[in-house]
Amino acid sequence: MDIPFWNREIETLDRASLEKVQLERLRQMVSWALKTPFYGRKLASAGIGSPEDVKSLRDLERIPFTVKDDLRRGFPRGLLAVEMSEVVRIHSSSGTTGIPTVIYFARDDLDRWTDLLARSITATGASSRDILQNMMTYGLFTGGLGLHYGAERVGMTVIPIGGGNTKRQIQTMKDFQTTVLHVTPSYLLHIHSQFENEGVRPGDLAVKRAFIGAEPHSENTRRKIEDLLGIQAFNSYGLSELNGPGVAFECVHRKDMHVWEDAYLIEIIDPKTGQNVEDGQEGEVVLTNLVRRAMPILRYRTRDLAFVHPEPCECGRTHRRLSRILGRTDDMLIINGVNVFPSQIEERIMKVPEVATNYLIHVDKKGALDRLTVKVEIYPKLFLGEAARLEALRARIREELRSSIVISPNVELHEPGSLPVSEGKAKRVVDERPKD
Amino acid sequence: MDIPFWNREIETLDRASLEKVQLERLRQMVSWALKTPFYGRKLASAGIGSPEDVKSLRDLERIPFTVKDDLRRGFPRGLLAVEMSEVVRIHSSSGTTGIPTVIYFARDDLDRWTDLLARSITATGASSRDILQNMMTYGLFTGGLGLHYGAERVGMTVIPIGGGNTKRQIQTMKDFQTTVLHVTPSYLLHIHSQFENEGVRPGDLAVKRAFIGAEPHSENTRRKIEDLLGIQAFNSYGLSELNGPGVAFECVHRKDMHVWEDAYLIEIIDPKTGQNVEDGQEGEVVLTNLVRRAMPILRYRTRDLAFVHPEPCECGRTHRRLSRILGRTDDMLIINGVNVFPSQIEERIMKVPEVATNYLIHVDKKGALDRLTVKVEIYPKLFLGEAARLEALRARIREELRSSIVISPNVELHEPGSLPVSEGKAKRVVDERPKD
Repeated sequence: MDIPFWNREIETLDRASLEKVQLERLRQMVSWALKTPFYGRKLASAGIGSPEDVKSLRDLERIPFTVKDDLRRGFPRGLLAVEMSEVVRIHSSSGTTGIPTVIYFARDDLDRWTDLLARSITATGASSRDILQNMMTYGLFTGGLGLHYGAERVGMTVIPIGGGNTKRQIQTMKDFQTTVLHVTPSYLLHIHSQFENEGVRPGDLAVKRAFIGAEPHSENTRRKIEDLLGIQAFNSYGLSELNGPGVAFECVHRKDMHVWEDAYLIEIIDPKTGQNVEDGQEGEVVLTNLVRRAMPILRYRTRDLAFVHPEPCECGRTHRRLSRILGRTDDMLIINGVNVFPSQIEERIMKVPEVATNYLIHVDKKGALDRLTVKVEIYPKLFLGEAARLEALRARIREELRSSIVISPNVELHEPGSLPVSEGKAKRVVDERPKD
Repeated sequence: MDIPFWNREIETLDRASLEKVQLERLRQMVSWALKTPFYGRKLASAGIGSPEDVKSLRDLERIPFTVKDDLRRGFPRGLLAVEMSEVVRIHSSSGTTGIPTVIYFARDDLDRWTDLLARSITATGASSRDILQNMMTYGLFTGGLGLHYGAERVGMTVIPIGGGNTKRQIQTMKDFQTTVLHVTPSYLLHIHSQFENEGVRPGDLAVKRAFIGAEPHSENTRRKIEDLLGIQAFNSYGLSELNGPGVAFECVHRKDMHVWEDAYLIEIIDPKTGQNVEDGQEGEVVLTNLVRRAMPILRYRTRDLAFVHPEPCECGRTHRRLSRILGRTDDMLIINGVNVFPSQIEERIMKVPEVATNYLIHVDKKGALDRLTVKVEIYPKLFLGEAARLEALRARIREELRSSIVISPNVELHEPGSLPVSEGKAKRVVDERPKD
């Protein structure tokens, strides 16, 4: 296979050279970070008063973690390392009702971020000959504009359609013979469920690839997407605190995501002790910018759970790979004392062939006990079967779940289209237990 | 006054040199246009088979007009002059339910468009020191992304917030001390009406300028915006068929909009005869791209009504100025046989100091006759007055309107916030007469 590269030299750099680049850049980052009130204090407390105090990459562990609340408390300018007149872009987290999480970009920051996305897109085999329908929301959210800039640099034909409006998305895929989609996995599955309504058959479309991200999803969901649409789906990873999309992306082999290690230092820590764990062990992803001048971020606790695997990839890239996001430290449910991750539930139900594309996890209290209900949509023809068959299916799904999460949830079967749909990040958990 | 320029040489070019540039570029455009099936036929019918057939700018008049339906009929590729692989951006008109109007950009087209917007922004006196809150919708609509790229080139701090969410808009203006807004005039007036609810006083904000466009509005509306917010409001003009915003923009003097005549040929025609009218005479704006390679458009009938004035501007720019858009050839109402433009109504009611910021024109049938009702919001304290005073105000507004539009409409007075509000282009006319 001819492996496509955006920047072959940096993507295939041997480990020693890559670490040399990392150390130089980490020192540069420390010198930028020291210009901010926030890191001025934080680094001083760790005995780091100048870049020279960073002797090796191991010194990274001396730096205290940064958490989301630090960004909020620093608002508006506590983490800004340049004059506002040098800032050319502001992004901000959506959905927060209180103080927003704000990210500042200097022109060179935008340029480097764009380059990482061009590299990511190219790694999947997409190129200037492709037509990209970018279904991520444009605006303050980094997902839309971020990938847009990278795709434009690659020279793709970009359709900046943004999120929502399923009818128009499908019509546009058809009209322009779109070849690449950028979309959340849940919304792509919803779009597929509407093909028949819109009179679209697979042969009418030219889609070959989808870049999926912005929400955790299981390998079975990816396979479902690939099978239903007859395409290749590439996992992508990023978060606005560290620029946005383009932190890690799958290459043509689709066996986990290369972290662009010349731009990010990745650590996996035990979320309880804060200590680094070995490669291959699951833990919380901690990221450090290696090239961001306006707003340097060091050792950011992402709350995402994953593991790194160091073995070489067939594509020749030396940048280590990150597993899919297995869950989040903050989305763990405790059901009658048992820890349950929504990702465990998704993984199991998506293995059941009768299950369609949407599901919802519902938690409430019945008396003193927590009650877990998993609502799944199944294909419509199944409802034509006998009640006994449905009951057997329900029992099978419950048993599948029990074997993974230890407890036995209620399972409800729903017709396709009857559970709520999101046009952006999916909301998979409704927890109605009283707070106290 | 120190007049700011983005490209002083081209902006102050003497007329003869400007026309020389125009002729060269028109020939280039013809050679590009001849590559498209649509203009291949159209130009042949006018006896133009090669760029050399264009001897002077007067030959423009030999070329048949292009109308919106031509773009629709040409969908998807009838007006495309390059290979799809050279197209890096697709924009599309919103709101159409049938076949969309689609615009293609090559990389160099985007670059030139961006430059025109950088020029436009600079002409208003805004600069890299400004913080821009871009309230136009991002995505397929050209208003959001178009100005975004220009502002980034200027080096402004761009907040890509997009349209809607008034609460968040106001909070963002306050948090980031936004200095420049890009917004429709109707939405800006709505935002102002919410300042009190959001606990914002004028002194809390740092806004100095607003770029207003995307819908026709009167000089009185502009003055109202400037007085209420204590800012300068700059008219802007553009349409997606001719790239988007940046066709014409006001300079620091705010006395109508310089048409960037090195990039667009402007004609004003009599919409009935199609003949060019003299400078200073009102008619339909017809525009020709002078630098667009992927999708060249020649003599596009915009349906916008305006006039050109040729006298020199104090700023030193030689590019002629276009009046505000006075109406559209297709928004004329015929009320019992009398032609009425919504813009005439707006102009008159916005002169009345008691009138607040929102209004609606309502037309229906009463028996055989058309009935015109103008609903206006007035300031709340006025409702505390006596009935006789309100009646007098109503009569005054009716008389003001009658003197302009000849007929006497019903006038209804409403409390602020009681008429429907749009977060994008305002919908000012509701016509409920039965179609036949």
